[in-house]
Amino acid sequence: MAATSAPHASAHANGNGTHAGMAAQVGAPTNPMATALLTDQYQFSMAYAYWKAGKHADRAVFDLYFRKNPFGGEFTVFAGLEECIKFIANYKFTEHDISFLQSVMPMCEGEFFDYLREVDCSDVEVYSIPEGSVVFPKVPLMRVEGPVAVVQLLETPFVNLINYASLVTTNAARHRHVAGKSKVLLEFGLRRAQGPDGAISASKYCFMGGFDATSNVLAGNLFGIPLRGTHSHAFVSSYMSLDEIPDKALRSKDGSRVCQDFVSLVQEWLQKIQVADSLGGVFGDTNQSELAAFVSYALAFPSNFLALVDTYDVMRSGIPNFCAVALALHDLGYKASGIRLDSGDLAYLSVEARKVFRAVEEEFNVPGFGKMVITASNDLNEETIDALNKQGHEVDAFGIGTYLVTCYSQAALGCVFKLVEINSKPRIKLSEDVAKVSIPCKKRCFRLYGKEGYPLVDIMIRESEPSPKAGERILCRHPFIESKRAYVVPQHVEELLQCYWPGRSDKPRAELPSLDKIRSRCMQQLEKLRPDHIRRLNPTPYKVSVSAKLYDFIHCLWLNEAPVGELQ
Amino acid sequence: MAATSAPHASAHANGNGTHAGMAAQVGAPTNPMATALLTDQYQFSMAYAYWKAGKHADRAVFDLYFRKNPFGGEFTVFAGLEECIKFIANYKFTEHDISFLQSVMPMCEGEFFDYLREVDCSDVEVYSIPEGSVVFPKVPLMRVEGPVAVVQLLETPFVNLINYASLVTTNAARHRHVAGKSKVLLEFGLRRAQGPDGAISASKYCFMGGFDATSNVLAGNLFGIPLRGTHSHAFVSSYMSLDEIPDKALRSKDGSRVCQDFVSLVQEWLQKIQVADSLGGVFGDTNQSELAAFVSYALAFPSNFLALVDTYDVMRSGIPNFCAVALALHDLGYKASGIRLDSGDLAYLSVEARKVFRAVEEEFNVPGFGKMVITASNDLNEETIDALNKQGHEVDAFGIGTYLVTCYSQAALGCVFKLVEINSKPRIKLSEDVAKVSIPCKKRCFRLYGKEGYPLVDIMIRESEPSPKAGERILCRHPFIESKRAYVVPQHVEELLQCYWPGRSDKPRAELPSLDKIRSRCMQQLEKLRPDHIRRLNPTPYKVSVSAKLYDFIHCLWLNEAPVGELQ
Repeated sequence: MAATSAPHASAHANGNGTHAGMAAQVGAPTNPMATALLTDQYQFSMAYAYWKAGKHADRAVFDLYFRKNPFGGEFTVFAGLEECIKFIANYKFTEHDISFLQSVMPMCEGEFFDYLREVDCSDVEVYSIPEGSVVFPKVPLMRVEGPVAVVQLLETPFVNLINYASLVTTNAARHRHVAGKSKVLLEFGLRRAQGPDGAISASKYCFMGGFDATSNVLAGNLFGIPLRGTHSHAFVSSYMSLDEIPDKALRSKDGSRVCQDFVSLVQEWLQKIQVADSLGGVFGDTNQSELAAFVSYALAFPSNFLALVDTYDVMRSGIPNFCAVALALHDLGYKASGIRLDSGDLAYLSVEARKVFRAVEEEFNVPGFGKMVITASNDLNEETIDALNKQGHEVDAFGIGTYLVTCYSQAALGCVFKLVEINSKPRIKLSEDVAKVSIPCKKRCFRLYGKEGYPLVDIMIRESEPSPKAGERILCRHPFIESKRAYVVPQHVEELLQCYWPGRSDKPRAELPSLDKIRSRCMQQLEKLRPDHIRRLNPTPYKVSVSAKLYDFIHCLWLNEAPVGELQ
Repeated sequence: MAATSAPHASAHANGNGTHAGMAAQVGAPTNPMATALLTDQYQFSMAYAYWKAGKHADRAVFDLYFRKNPFGGEFTVFAGLEECIKFIANYKFTEHDISFLQSVMPMCEGEFFDYLREVDCSDVEVYSIPEGSVVFPKVPLMRVEGPVAVVQLLETPFVNLINYASLVTTNAARHRHVAGKSKVLLEFGLRRAQGPDGAISASKYCFMGGFDATSNVLAGNLFGIPLRGTHSHAFVSSYMSLDEIPDKALRSKDGSRVCQDFVSLVQEWLQKIQVADSLGGVFGDTNQSELAAFVSYALAFPSNFLALVDTYDVMRSGIPNFCAVALALHDLGYKASGIRLDSGDLAYLSVEARKVFRAVEEEFNVPGFGKMVITASNDLNEETIDALNKQGHEVDAFGIGTYLVTCYSQAALGCVFKLVEINSKPRIKLSEDVAKVSIPCKKRCFRLYGKEGYPLVDIMIRESEPSPKAGERILCRHPFIESKRAYVVPQHVEELLQCYWPGRSDKPRAELPSLDKIRSRCMQQLEKLRPDHIRRLNPTPYKVSVSAKLYDFIHCLWLNEAPVGELQ
């Protein structure tokens, strides 16, 4: 099998390989609604028809793959594997489930439900590309083997758990790519996501794809993702005046003294700012309810003061109010965190805000004030960040919601789950659309790397074929187009599909890594990719191929199954 | 309050109006992940700042509304209310939640967490438009009143629970509108939805918006939605030949006799079809694995035989194979259900299939065979159904997935939650974009109906104003544009916001109706709407207005809050 194991696939002991043992080891799906009933009705109809024909235990092999990269790009990040493994580890019908199925399928014989009562995934094997890997169309992300009736039942939940996970991870990775490594990326999508776990999943997978933190507290709790968040416009407008602040005292950071009237200190600073020539005298009266809100927030969080400055008017009110509070905090040894802009021309406003911060640093001799963090957060997406980059801006952190978590520019990834073999007989699904013809046979898949360390091509081979080897020439053929083929001498060969659920086989089980490790894998894989595959405009397609043997077999089977005249 | 109660708002006894009593009455949220931690981090930051300032119990009023109808349309269907009420009925922090919050907010005083331990929604009041109502931009869908810190914590989950629910219900209603009342609409979105409860919510709300059934078994179980589903391409290609059918016997429907070799009966019919002149002799050899799959499925479901006919070739293989099995079933007293087309030119194939069914009815004298149900299901959406309608087709039922459940053409509805009053003082949120200025004040909202029974205009008034009355002239003003105003003499007046969660008040609580009732409400409301508001192309915007008094107040407050020079 050559020296081709994936980096973190560890062959740990599989001693307690019983179904229950494995369930305890991997835990339950994040969403308690991911149960055995979360599937399409037709999977049960088919299960019954298979069972009636005595065919339910036929050994089937299915491939899970997608046909086209999303977002007009040429790469996808694979995600959702851990949830799939958790799903099958806990796969079991309860008596409640069975009663319900009996009620909706009254025409089925009673023994069928006895069969369902016994169904679990102990006889299923799952091979998968490691989560967080960069993947490409047509190459199986997962290969699922087992009794045909059971694996069919898994089709819908697996596709559900992979589709959105991979889509939103890819979207996050694209946002990271356009924002650049130095920016802080915050996922703010909970309120606009498609339901509660549209949000929970989004938070998990955006972090995996390269975000730094989320606003979603439950996701922070479930996955250990760092949390971020300060205050909203409503907080600002809930204040009417500075009279609403009952306790005006603030102890200095080092605890050595207490400022009895922090409000007055802020007001003094506001006056100094308003008369300072270097600040251009642009400031008139600022909004007093906003000032009260900022002071109140600073008294609660003197070490983490970050203010939303656009409730009334960024440059006329928000920025001078913020500076006054930040300077007063500075007098007491605290360092303000920065501002958030949530409307208007973010390029212009961030540049203007930066000018003020630098002028304040200069005017009042406050080292570091010019570097105040500027967060922007108004309906941002790949395009707007790209446009900001082109205009020039001073934003340090982006808070991204709607477009990120709903994958607004393409809200679905078309993952499919196709039968490729049954009882060791290869199967094909034809279509008038060649792109929709499935690639038959139980396959092994490899990534071939070139001299410069970049991946060159993915190749699928029949299980019986020898693995490609580093330094040995191999012919890589386009699966459907005869003229497209190339010889490759790989410098390095990586086998893509690892065994994550060995079923009754004695194969070693690859570890499910932590979210942090998956995130690192994703970052590393994207860095390893040739830049032209990943660029936003006119990216180069990555090549996906089959071996010469598999190519011949596909076309033989195709001719065999298609009605005469179909291929003329 | 005039004769203006909403149709199904019943004033049932509120005797057990305690928080726990109400929780028991309404049940838990559908998704167990919808807990008190499902909110944005900044809501907790604000709660702490309010608490530090002694302001947390200040009585706040927030409006939940959206600014623009989705999908280029001029109407939206409001959904998600029941889940919001279930959410607040069960609102409570567990000790686990508290520990987690302490760990992520170590800078907060311990007493704050004692306060959080006591928080529930017994002091919150929720007023809402009934679920399933047709709604319009700017008019509050919900008004939430209560302690400012608590209502802020509810902002994120409420917006999450309403946004996608309303979006996908509206999408379903639009699909129903373009398909027409006579077609059967099936939601097939589970595998492509955004996570498990993207799917569960989609199934619930598509049914609400006018769909007839779903493929999602768990949704059928949770909500009682009818289930549909037969078999997939994999089922067809899992068969190799007719030899795989072990038990070939089939008892007739009336139980009077047994056909010992159903396979031979099917083969006889296939030969008759192939030589029949009236069928045009188009049929050569059909695919035998497909035929085996159909026979096997028919033996399992003789009374519900519905076949997917496009695995190999619809007209050369799928249709003749289907007809042979259907005719053999007919010999035994069964009636086949129909076919499903999942690829190719659905208009052409449905018309050709219909021709064959009619010819079979004629040739073999099988009354009703020509009316065989044709279901279509390949990447359908509003546009493709519209295009099919224009081309002419013979499809009876549409199975719709990806575009429906992900709301592909617009994946988010921009619901917002804005503070409109605190401690009885009206508040406004300004913005350089006039469309984003909030409408201040605690308001009541009414729908005014004209002579022909159509709704004419929605109007918001200050709480202190008298309600509009049928037969009395009232001036309706555009909230922001001075010149847009009109006198209306309504024939009928409907108050929109009903009390669904009275908190500590003694207001009668409106009932949460069943899903079926909400679905009927939605259908009725759409039928009551003037057709030009609902048409697909260039629909007429529905008018939304404020009273003269509220108009004056908004503009007075606006001038007051905006920095000088802002409005020049």
